[in-house]
Amino acid sequence: MTAAPERPLGDMDPVTFRRAGHELVEWVAQYLAESDHYPILPRLRPGEIRAALPDEAPEEGEPIEAILADFERAIVPGLTHWNHPGFFGYFAISASGPGVLAELLAAALNQQAMLWRTSPAATELEEVVLGWLRSLLRLPPVFEGVIYDTASISSLHALAAAREASVPEIRVRGLPGRDLPPLRVYCSEEAHSSIDKAVMLLGLGQNGLLRIPVDAAFRMRPEALADAVRADRARGVRPVAVVATVGTTSTTSVDPVPAVADICEAERVWLHIDAAYGGPAAMVPDCEWIFDGVARADSVVVNPHKWLFTPFDLSACYCRRMDAVRAAFALTPDYLQTREHGAARNLMDTGIQLGRRFRALKLWFVLRYFGAAGVRRRLADHIQLARRFAAWVDADPDFERLAPVPLSVVCFRAHPRALGDEPRRIDSDGDSVLDALNTELLDRVNASGEVFLSHTRIGNRVALRLAIGHLRTTEVHVARAWVLLRAALHELLTCQNDLA
Amino acid sequence: MTAAPERPLGDMDPVTFRRAGHELVEWVAQYLAESDHYPILPRLRPGEIRAALPDEAPEEGEPIEAILADFERAIVPGLTHWNHPGFFGYFAISASGPGVLAELLAAALNQQAMLWRTSPAATELEEVVLGWLRSLLRLPPVFEGVIYDTASISSLHALAAAREASVPEIRVRGLPGRDLPPLRVYCSEEAHSSIDKAVMLLGLGQNGLLRIPVDAAFRMRPEALADAVRADRARGVRPVAVVATVGTTSTTSVDPVPAVADICEAERVWLHIDAAYGGPAAMVPDCEWIFDGVARADSVVVNPHKWLFTPFDLSACYCRRMDAVRAAFALTPDYLQTREHGAARNLMDTGIQLGRRFRALKLWFVLRYFGAAGVRRRLADHIQLARRFAAWVDADPDFERLAPVPLSVVCFRAHPRALGDEPRRIDSDGDSVLDALNTELLDRVNASGEVFLSHTRIGNRVALRLAIGHLRTTEVHVARAWVLLRAALHELLTCQNDLA
Repeated sequence: MTAAPERPLGDMDPVTFRRAGHELVEWVAQYLAESDHYPILPRLRPGEIRAALPDEAPEEGEPIEAILADFERAIVPGLTHWNHPGFFGYFAISASGPGVLAELLAAALNQQAMLWRTSPAATELEEVVLGWLRSLLRLPPVFEGVIYDTASISSLHALAAAREASVPEIRVRGLPGRDLPPLRVYCSEEAHSSIDKAVMLLGLGQNGLLRIPVDAAFRMRPEALADAVRADRARGVRPVAVVATVGTTSTTSVDPVPAVADICEAERVWLHIDAAYGGPAAMVPDCEWIFDGVARADSVVVNPHKWLFTPFDLSACYCRRMDAVRAAFALTPDYLQTREHGAARNLMDTGIQLGRRFRALKLWFVLRYFGAAGVRRRLADHIQLARRFAAWVDADPDFERLAPVPLSVVCFRAHPRALGDEPRRIDSDGDSVLDALNTELLDRVNASGEVFLSHTRIGNRVALRLAIGHLRTTEVHVARAWVLLRAALHELLTCQNDLA
Repeated sequence: MTAAPERPLGDMDPVTFRRAGHELVEWVAQYLAESDHYPILPRLRPGEIRAALPDEAPEEGEPIEAILADFERAIVPGLTHWNHPGFFGYFAISASGPGVLAELLAAALNQQAMLWRTSPAATELEEVVLGWLRSLLRLPPVFEGVIYDTASISSLHALAAAREASVPEIRVRGLPGRDLPPLRVYCSEEAHSSIDKAVMLLGLGQNGLLRIPVDAAFRMRPEALADAVRADRARGVRPVAVVATVGTTSTTSVDPVPAVADICEAERVWLHIDAAYGGPAAMVPDCEWIFDGVARADSVVVNPHKWLFTPFDLSACYCRRMDAVRAAFALTPDYLQTREHGAARNLMDTGIQLGRRFRALKLWFVLRYFGAAGVRRRLADHIQLARRFAAWVDADPDFERLAPVPLSVVCFRAHPRALGDEPRRIDSDGDSVLDALNTELLDRVNASGEVFLSHTRIGNRVALRLAIGHLRTTEVHVARAWVLLRAALHELLTCQNDLA
């Protein structure tokens, strides 16, 4: 007789699931409410978490209580707390309460929304919520929407469609061994690295991407774009697509979309708008201008998981030529044929990924729970906070702002009077001193655990970035960042004077 | 004075979150335990769900209770119940209890695991659990693992790396306008459509994919592969990669990996193994043979969200030449530079997607809660159930099996004695009669709501597929499918006789 297995086959029993589930709801409620009790960046070195965990899976199953205890012991100390209201790095994001609740449901429902038949609810709710968002963004209904995981994947699909529209029969004949001119995609110097990666994956190579210079406010210079397209055509290079950004990653600059759209229309080149971060702000009356001309684009990406309170991941891609996306990607093997082909949308036709989670559910929860007005109020508040912080920077003779603040991100640096405030000093030798100072300043402030800022380079200078986007961030947290920055700078300068 | 907003700014308050969270835990516990109370396929027509929902987002926020009520009213009736233990379509998957609990945590933690620094826990736990899984699959540590969302994306990365390894400087110079030979990827006639899509996206075109004929058991014929590679080389086509499948989508056939690996080694061609569905079975002593030769591959994909009880999505990609993946994808803009570059793995370097969810958490929960032995017992049980069903088909003179059953899927069809059982009849006119009969049989059985089977075509015949993979499926459900199939066939034949 063999030993009976510890547990019967099948899944976790409902009693255990309920007990653990209720415990986790309590844990999550407390975590979301008190995320500011944790240091934002974990205080450990690479390898420490791995070293604290066994090298092999357990042979026999373990009680869920043991797993939850290890979660608290080994995992929580290794988290970077994106939920902390003092998280100002990269783009701040929010796992809102309604979004988290929807994700619990989505995980349990485990819908695989590849075909209408495999989840009518996920397929049609996606159409409904993307319609809501489209309307809030004032895009016309000719833009068909589809949800992907990330903006990287949204932009990849947009550029694949542009390639499909530009190179006849590429779907069948591909690129190699054909008598084709070099192909080119254009974006500004400030466009996101996902555009490079998409162009590389599509087989166009980094040479297939031309970065257009920007003006003093980090916006693509349309006349430089027009010149580049003309020059390329003259030397036999074929323009395929232009990517304009509404809210670039470093400075949140907004490319002049109307002028770029003029060029794209004249040159018959696909226009893709990367509004992954900035898009939601177009709902705010003050910021409607950022979407001027966007309705003339061929495709637009907006990420609700960035600045729309939706847990990661959910990227919305709108396309007025979804036929080109389908031409690039639709392919239905025998085992996926259904009666509804033709009568219903099958979302697998617009994607490289066959499998798709039920992502629409969380956006539905978020838009309903907060309402359009509630979303607008929160976005406007973030923009207001950023302007207030920018004003503090501007008013302080030891700091300087390095870029305009059209949205909710402030780029600035310490530039103490003591180090000289002649512009000439900054551009020559002074700059490396200032770079080192700002890097050290950033480290000190981030070491507090109370706030976290990231950095970038602007005009070859180290810049600090304060990005406001978390739902629980208030003036208290922004003011705290400012206090910490000034105190750390004071410390640093005092210490330098002591040494001197 | 303006009217006060309904709610203060910020997130859902903790009291509301707790109340709704506990309610949802109860709902999910009951749903997972009683998913067999629902009809598997929703009984509605395309457009009905959309029509039941408003066209615009609400202007003001709504109470969570109203949203949950609408979830039950408008969404639940539109779900396809992948959690039903009678779900035998496509590949059956499981949202296991521990996996769902982990997803609740992952949604709340909202980790963005692009850099080590942005989530040391997600970065290192991914390494740990992929190490566990690698060891369970008996792959050597030289295979570095990375988690993607889907097998489509895993195979895309593998083939992008193969392209990178094959075409010098493709990352920079791309494919167009270069003096390159046509490039070719090889897979069997039975390989998944994701391979076509990857090859198309990579710019190789459908002509860049050659499908190799299969033997009577639907396995790639290695001598046909060798001939094809030789013939291609002779005519100036460059072989880039071979994809062998361990568990094909239609019949779960297993390509002869050792023989394919011999060819790939001799020809110095990248070998990618698509074990998205079949992989986990390699842990079961009876089935270890399916991974013979797999350790000789360059890359392997295994999907824990398919047959490893992990809620969708989580695809594990192992690569012995992760440097080629990095060569194809790594790119770090200024705003993502960190101190740890070099000292720590940054998972953004191995992917087209910059953003990454904390997917490792659910696999950790699943492997620990069930344990290696518990996973093996459950997989072995599924394989056993499939063999039992296959035996019933074989013993019934009105049914016939259409493919071997190496894993947990049975392909079969009704072929009633009354319609003649001469093989010749089947191949000529008889076949369309049999196709129509089996299509009708499938519809009737699926209309029961108690079971759901999907179909495929095998040798140009309509085949029914019974795919076992759900954690709660027992012999009761498999037997019920068989009863329903026989009863429906009897009805159909009686009805035809009545008409005649």
